[in-house]
Parts: sequence; C-alpha cells; structure tokens
Amino acid sequence: MADAVTYVIGIDLGGTKVRIAVVSLQGGLVQAETWPTLGEQGPEAVLGTIRNGVQQLLRQAGAGGDAVRGAGLGAPGPLDIHRGTVSVLPNLPGWQGFPLRDRVAGVLGMPVALGNDGNAGALGEHRFGAGRGTQDMVYVTLGTGVGGGIIAGGRLLVGAVGAAGEIGHMVLDPQGPPCSCGRRGCLEAYAAGSGLQRRATLAAQSGRPTMMSEIAATADGAITPHVIQQAARQGDALAQEVLAEAATYLGWGLVSLVHCFNPELVVFGGGLLALRDDMIEPAIALAREQVFEQHRQGLRFAYAGLGEDAGVLGAAALALDAFCGR
Amino acid sequence: MADAVTYVIGIDLGGTKVRIAVVSLQGGLVQAETWPTLGEQGPEAVLGTIRNGVQQLLRQAGAGGDAVRGAGLGAPGPLDIHRGTVSVLPNLPGWQGFPLRDRVAGVLGMPVALGNDGNAGALGEHRFGAGRGTQDMVYVTLGTGVGGGIIAGGRLLVGAVGAAGEIGHMVLDPQGPPCSCGRRGCLEAYAAGSGLQRRATLAAQSGRPTMMSEIAATADGAITPHVIQQAARQGDALAQEVLAEAATYLGWGLVSLVHCFNPELVVFGGGLLALRDDMIEPAIALAREQVFEQHRQGLRFAYAGLGEDAGVLGAAALALDAFCGR
Repeated sequence: MADAVTYVIGIDLGGTKVRIAVVSLQGGLVQAETWPTLGEQGPEAVLGTIRNGVQQLLRQAGAGGDAVRGAGLGAPGPLDIHRGTVSVLPNLPGWQGFPLRDRVAGVLGMPVALGNDGNAGALGEHRFGAGRGTQDMVYVTLGTGVGGGIIAGGRLLVGAVGAAGEIGHMVLDPQGPPCSCGRRGCLEAYAAGSGLQRRATLAAQSGRPTMMSEIAATADGAITPHVIQQAARQGDALAQEVLAEAATYLGWGLVSLVHCFNPELVVFGGGLLALRDDMIEPAIALAREQVFEQHRQGLRFAYAGLGEDAGVLGAAALALDAFCGR
Repeated sequence: MADAVTYVIGIDLGGTKVRIAVVSLQGGLVQAETWPTLGEQGPEAVLGTIRNGVQQLLRQAGAGGDAVRGAGLGAPGPLDIHRGTVSVLPNLPGWQGFPLRDRVAGVLGMPVALGNDGNAGALGEHRFGAGRGTQDMVYVTLGTGVGGGIIAGGRLLVGAVGAAGEIGHMVLDPQGPPCSCGRRGCLEAYAAGSGLQRRATLAAQSGRPTMMSEIAATADGAITPHVIQQAARQGDALAQEVLAEAATYLGWGLVSLVHCFNPELVVFGGGLLALRDDMIEPAIALAREQVFEQHRQGLRFAYAGLGEDAGVLGAAALALDAFCGR
C-alpha cells in the first residue's frame, strides 16, 4: 500500500476559474487542467466540477484513488480553516458558510487541506520554487491586490484562524489614499494593480498633462498598470510619479516586513511582476538601504519560480504539508 | 542524574543593570538579585559579575552546578544569534563583536541561549504569564522604545539572525516624525516614551497654551510620558492631542500586526503600561474596530503578567526553550 501513495491533488479555486493538478510528492506536475468555476450555479455545481476534474486527471495519469494522499485547496480572500469555509464568491447564494473543505473531502474520498492562496503560494515557492532550502521567507504577491504568506523557522505561519500573511493590509499611512478594504493607506492601496489604477486615474484627472488617458483610449479606456508602465517608459512625468510613489511605499512595506519577520529571502509573485524594473526593483533598493544592518545580513530578494502553475502547486504544497510530513 | 536537573538561570543584561535569577522549570523564581552592569569596565568585568552572581545565587538556592540545565541571556537591541554577540553597550570599548554568549557559557560551564529582550519577554509571557496556553501571540513592549516578540504556532519566531519581532520599526508613515533610528514615522516615533517626549516637547514649543512645561518644571524639566499624562488628565488639550495621536498610530500598528500574524492574543508589557487608559486602551479599541472580521474572531488583548521580573523570567524561558524541550 505505502508505495502506491505517490501523488497529491492541487486545487486552485478562483472566482472565474478552477485549476486542478495531479502533483508528485517532489512537486512534479503530472496532469493539470482548468475549468470555469461557475460559482453562480451554487456550490454543489462546483463540487461536481472538482470531482469530475480530479477523476479525469487521475485517469489520464493512470493512477487509482489509493495513489493519492490528499488534496490541497487554495482560495483567495478570507477563509476559516477551523470551519473549512471560503469566501471566494461571497455574494453568490449558497456560498455563505458552505463547508467546502469537508464537502470536497467527501466527494473526493480523501482528506483536504484548505489555505489562503497567498499562504499556499508561500508554501509552493518554499517547497518547489525560489525559496527552496530557506527557513525564513516572506512571499509577496502583487496582483489586483497584495497578498502574501510567511515561512518562519521552516513552517508556514498560519495564525489563529488561518488568516496570517494578510500583508496587503499593513497600514503605511492612516491618512493615505483609500484602499478597496475601506481603510486608508494600506500597502495594497499603493502597490496593487487596483491601487495603481486608482492613483493614476486620479492623477490623470488632475489637469496635469499626461499621455496615460490617450494610451488607455487605445484599449478599453482603463488606466491599467500596463498603461502606466507604457506612459512612464515614454517619459510621462505623471506616470513616473505614480510608479515612484508605489515603489516608495512598497519599499517601506518591505522594511516593516523585514523588521517583523527577519527573513533571509523575500520572494515576489503575482501578475504585477511585469512592473519588476519600474516598481519592484526600486522598492527593493529602498528596503536594502533602510533596514537595520542586522536584518540586511544575508537578506536576498527573488522572483517566484513556479510561474502560471503557482496556484495549483501551492495548493498541492498545502496537502504535502498537511498529509505527507515535512 | 536526570532528577537533579531542576533549574535554569535567567540573565537580564541591560545597559546599567544586570539582573540574574535561578528559576525552576515551572517558572518559579527561586533566587534573584541585581548588580550594576559596569559595562565601561569592559566585557571581562561583566563576565566576572555574571559568574559571581550565578555562583552566589546557586549557593543561596542550595543547588549544585549539576542542578542547572543552562542559562538564558536576554539583551536589548540588535544581536546576532549565530555569532552570539550583543550590542547592549555598542559605544563602549571592547564590546564590538565580543562573543558574549560563548564566553558566558565558558565561565558558567553551561550552555547559554541568547535572545533579544523583546523576544525573551514574549517567550516568558507565553510560558509563565498572560499568554499561557496560546498558540499565536504578539508581545508588544512599550517603554523608552517599542519592542516585541512573536509566538507563531506555539514557537518563538526567531528569524534568520534572531532579529524578528522588531515591531517598533514598522513604518506607519514614511513622512512622519523622526524616529530615534533615523527613519521617519516608525511605531516607536509615536508610541514609545522617547517618541511621546519628543512629540510633546515640540508641541509645547508651538506657542499653544499648555501646562506641560509647568508640570515638567516641578521635576527635571523634561516632558516625560508621566508629565503628559498628568497634564492630559487635568484637561490640557495639547497633552490630550499628543496622547490621542500616539493611541491612533499604536492602533494602526496593531492592525498591521494582527493582519500579518493573525494572533489570538496581543500582550502589552513595558514601562509605559501606566498609559493603559490614556493610550493603550484607545489603541485597542481602534484595532478591534479596524481589523478584518476574520482576524477579530476570538482576538484578545491582555497586559503582561510577569511584572518587574519579566526580564529574568523571559531570559530563563530562552533557556527552557533551548535546553529543556517544549
């Protein structure tokens, strides 16, 4: 029996898509596929998608159910690891308080580990990606929002209800710009896609000359991070200021994180890695300069190594962590 | 032999005083005494004080050297757990890079665990004080500076070089008031004794009417936290504003800490607990209101339970953690 156990399942549950993978204990992607989440059809429909998807992928992998040790389920946003509930689709009927973890475990006939996608990403990078071999690592995802996860002493910092690592809502200025969470001056309000877009749109409305609106008009009109980047690279002063402000606040956010966690490595992931040279590298430079000498010793910064499969590999890492020792 | 091991030694090394205690494995204070550090006489003199102190206390406790499992050495400020160096007295000759941990281990003939005093305090409160039985706890010391320590999943968060928990230098506003560390807007610049004194002194010089200078003149002239508190309680608007600002920023600092660590308990310690009603409780109220619902679930706030022996008990906890299993 023991040598039949060779896989875990990774389930990356998002608001629009669910990606599922069969993953080896060494983090090898054996089979993977993406389906629409169809959350508006209710949780039972999503359960069906997950069950059928896992069965199909295991068939393709030529593996029986007894070859699988368990599944990891990564989801964005607040979740409750004790109750096993997620709020991926909080405004849709049937989802509030739905015991997703236990129901997925039921339909798959295997144990399921639940985790926030930022925490799953941290585990994935720590096990298989840029963080291999480190003991103390901070993972920062820069996308529409800012998320993260912390590895402390080789273990994921989970927190009391599984909500640790919500680093996008560290407050960098209580009087700062509004954040999507309702507070002001969160890291996310400056350095996430949503925050950048809000800051740039406001700046463009200020009357100062900028080509951002013009560039945006060639697409759907929205001043996206990509638009800001294009304008800045063409010398647009306002776009450059928006990115510089984002870099500065991201830099100070890194200072705070490094002082709290004293990591040896900070890993950046997420959709905004395209702003590497425009925002992230200047932020790293600021942080390197500003942290205590102690904390600077041996401190490294790196970019996520798992690419587009970070989600499923992170989810698989949740299962490895929970069901396959360490 | 095994049942002869019943004590650990706690050494709380400060710039002016060193307090040493013989502590039972259950955290009972068996013997304790305080000596002047006399750091200006060089590290060898301090080693002598520690050796003689420990010998004297063990004699008083009627315990032989084989009754002791090891010693914990807590020190303020940055230290290097790999090299075993501290910077309690960084400006005094002979201290830079002095291998204090290994030399103390040598003169005592027992293993020595080194830790930052904030981290030691966190361990002490977790084992013996307000944090007993918790898994995820944040310890915040409010004194001349702001320090802290993190318990995550039941273990002290040490970090790569032992410098985790430097929460006083989370940045709450990069354009904020100067901090003693050279940065701006650190938590310490608002909510530590040094920060409060600086803010209040500046406010008193603004020309607005205040009784703070008058009250200060009855002592040594310094507008200490105690002076600010007295003035505020007598209705002094400026003093009340200084405390309100400190409470607000401390509150936002707590929000950031809770979002990062998702603790079940935040424990406050340090000399500024006298400002409990004037600064800490309003900060707690802000934090309770502002954290995510997830993080608020079951979140408690408490005050340190170890009192004036927090330092030596925390140092003893370092030894228990390092040498006596968990």
